[in-house]
Amino acid sequence: MAVESKNPAGGLRLWRNARLATMAENSAGLGIVEQGALAARDGRIVYAGSQSEMPSAFAQGEIIDCEGRWITPGLIDCHTHLVHAGNRANEFEMRLAGATYEEVARAGGGIVSSVRSLRAASEGDLVAQTLPRLNALIAEGVTTVEIKSGYGLDLDNEKKSLRAARQLGNERPVTVRTTCLAAHALPPEAKGDKDAFIDLVAKTILPGVAAEGLADAVDGFCEGIAFSPEQMSRVFDKAKALGLPVKLHADQLSNLHGAELAARYHALSADHLEYTDEAGAMAMAKAGTVATILPGAYYFIRETKKPPIALFRQLGVKMAVATDNNPGTSPLTSLLLTMNMAATLFGMTVDECLAGVTREAARALGLLEETGTLVSGKSADLAIWDIERPAELVYRMGFNPLHARIWRGQ
Amino acid sequence: MAVESKNPAGGLRLWRNARLATMAENSAGLGIVEQGALAARDGRIVYAGSQSEMPSAFAQGEIIDCEGRWITPGLIDCHTHLVHAGNRANEFEMRLAGATYEEVARAGGGIVSSVRSLRAASEGDLVAQTLPRLNALIAEGVTTVEIKSGYGLDLDNEKKSLRAARQLGNERPVTVRTTCLAAHALPPEAKGDKDAFIDLVAKTILPGVAAEGLADAVDGFCEGIAFSPEQMSRVFDKAKALGLPVKLHADQLSNLHGAELAARYHALSADHLEYTDEAGAMAMAKAGTVATILPGAYYFIRETKKPPIALFRQLGVKMAVATDNNPGTSPLTSLLLTMNMAATLFGMTVDECLAGVTREAARALGLLEETGTLVSGKSADLAIWDIERPAELVYRMGFNPLHARIWRGQ
Ligand SMILES: [Zn+2]
Ligand SMILES: [Zn+2]
Repeated sequence: MAVESKNPAGGLRLWRNARLATMAENSAGLGIVEQGALAARDGRIVYAGSQSEMPSAFAQGEIIDCEGRWITPGLIDCHTHLVHAGNRANEFEMRLAGATYEEVARAGGGIVSSVRSLRAASEGDLVAQTLPRLNALIAEGVTTVEIKSGYGLDLDNEKKSLRAARQLGNERPVTVRTTCLAAHALPPEAKGDKDAFIDLVAKTILPGVAAEGLADAVDGFCEGIAFSPEQMSRVFDKAKALGLPVKLHADQLSNLHGAELAARYHALSADHLEYTDEAGAMAMAKAGTVATILPGAYYFIRETKKPPIALFRQLGVKMAVATDNNPGTSPLTSLLLTMNMAATLFGMTVDECLAGVTREAARALGLLEETGTLVSGKSADLAIWDIERPAELVYRMGFNPLHARIWRGQ
Repeated sequence: MAVESKNPAGGLRLWRNARLATMAENSAGLGIVEQGALAARDGRIVYAGSQSEMPSAFAQGEIIDCEGRWITPGLIDCHTHLVHAGNRANEFEMRLAGATYEEVARAGGGIVSSVRSLRAASEGDLVAQTLPRLNALIAEGVTTVEIKSGYGLDLDNEKKSLRAARQLGNERPVTVRTTCLAAHALPPEAKGDKDAFIDLVAKTILPGVAAEGLADAVDGFCEGIAFSPEQMSRVFDKAKALGLPVKLHADQLSNLHGAELAARYHALSADHLEYTDEAGAMAMAKAGTVATILPGAYYFIRETKKPPIALFRQLGVKMAVATDNNPGTSPLTSLLLTMNMAATLFGMTVDECLAGVTREAARALGLLEETGTLVSGKSADLAIWDIERPAELVYRMGFNPLHARIWRGQ
């Protein structure tokens, strides 16, 4: 009450006359409240539920009439490589004109071109180049975004990437979670020696990044063209020793049993998973590792093997959905379109798609206590939509019905 | 000169320091001018080319420094069903949840639900409901849009749809071309009698629409679930008698030889064409009928048969690319995303995609004399982009780099 006497409204804001998709755990489907209201005090939700049952004390502050609009949790993009320099439109153009991967590589293309561009860019350049992409996500209601490093591939450039990611969270009203993905690809100076590079990651890059608190998690790319399960284990052992949670790019192009590896380390998530088999899915279910589904990359690289959605569903593996924004395989900056792709290409239901960019995305970031559902005590991160039913958010392509976005109550 | 003395600038505007993709016919690729300038007087292009070779008289009016940005022709969406009422997100949701087409139909779904909604809406309702979709197109640089009727299916409701389409051209700075698609589907009151309905179209609806000048062209849906080639011929004969050009939804779900039918009537375009064979493509090439490629519908209905792009390319059939915006099979309002789909799903090149939404789309509307390329004499319809190379317009997904849009010089 002391606070309220200093500030009569108590930092209180009320959104009334709304339809809520709370996405709350243990509620059926989307957790719908048709005649709903949501109150926040000092940036945190203090009420989300039936308007008629709301305690009148919550109507003492600023009141916003939603005129029947829908409120969902603010959207969460839980897997991006948003911080990068340049783009690879030239490779895209070459491939469409008939160039082979070898010809693209000879012309300086591939991930090494992104490494070169990133290393040449200053931290300020990276922030400036990334802001338009972040703006695009925010314009569709994103309130939390994960950003990976992974084009630096040495200590200084990985730190620069992660500092740029942190800085983006100062430039815009959005929560940024950073992930160190040093084990993304082999840099040119490693001259093909993957084990020596993994040593560098485990002994130098991860400790250096951790010492400055630059990463909230550690990720890696487990694939024939990247690193083996054994090499990833060494990275994960170091992450655990540093107290950092892990996640993994797993089973995207082949089945190296990345899903089991991720589960063994109780990873927050295993991501991509096109080639994951039943043993992998069962291990994930048991470990509580979220399956992060990335349809943009599947679509862009014209993959034909789909992740085992029905199996995940049947085994109770939680599914997140994310853009995987990156210049090489998913130049995608729309989480709404990503939901459409998850539904259209993979058959995920509307409820699964919406949970995938809210509650399950929060879980995949270890942030479910903080955001991802409309529940008292969490951050008041909201998206307010000009729609008649939540399915419209998944059904449309290239249309943004966002009416307002609220981050931490504002 | 009299005009110039009344208005010293002569209505003259100059965009300098630009990179042009003129898309001009007979120029290689995109018709690129690296150090370019474009001048317009009274809404028409009077110069588009090298800045250093530009006559100095064009620098007498308002001057806009493009700071090296790219200018393309304003984009043209040459196939839409933009005027419709309601949406079909509920059907989308039901199908993802496992409902069969029969179950969707029993729940009141399918095209008949769009007919019901449209008939219940006033002309003003239709304009209001369509404006957000038109705004989305315009926000990406669209300066010309084709809009079809086809959910009215009787004289009054077809006229209402076409009047709404015309009205949209008054509400926004955009050129609207209208198409009467009365032969779209059988209305419930026809009780299954397709021939009787085609009589109504040919004897009542088309003459009524033409008498009020409401349609710029006539279209039909030639398919097993719609109308036969013989029935479409009767519609086209009447269109020709009324002096209206024709186009056709052809060979989308099966090969009824719609491409040949369209070519026989010298149709402006044949659209969809997934099942078109070599004879159909050859007939189109000979007749100069444009192939309008609609990847949004292919993607949304999870079609697997692709239109014969390589064949069209080899035979010199011109290819346009369009959204096919409609509530049942392509709720798509991004022509940029449509280009990405044409490239990613069908292997169209960057140059083909960009020509498909500019020059060839203008050709598909019979408007190539007026717009679609940056050439003296045409309407100054421009899109100015924050990009480093035109391929970025095709490569990205869910990102809008439009800097400015100019329609008729403004
Ligand atoms: Zn990734
Ligand atoms: Zn159509």
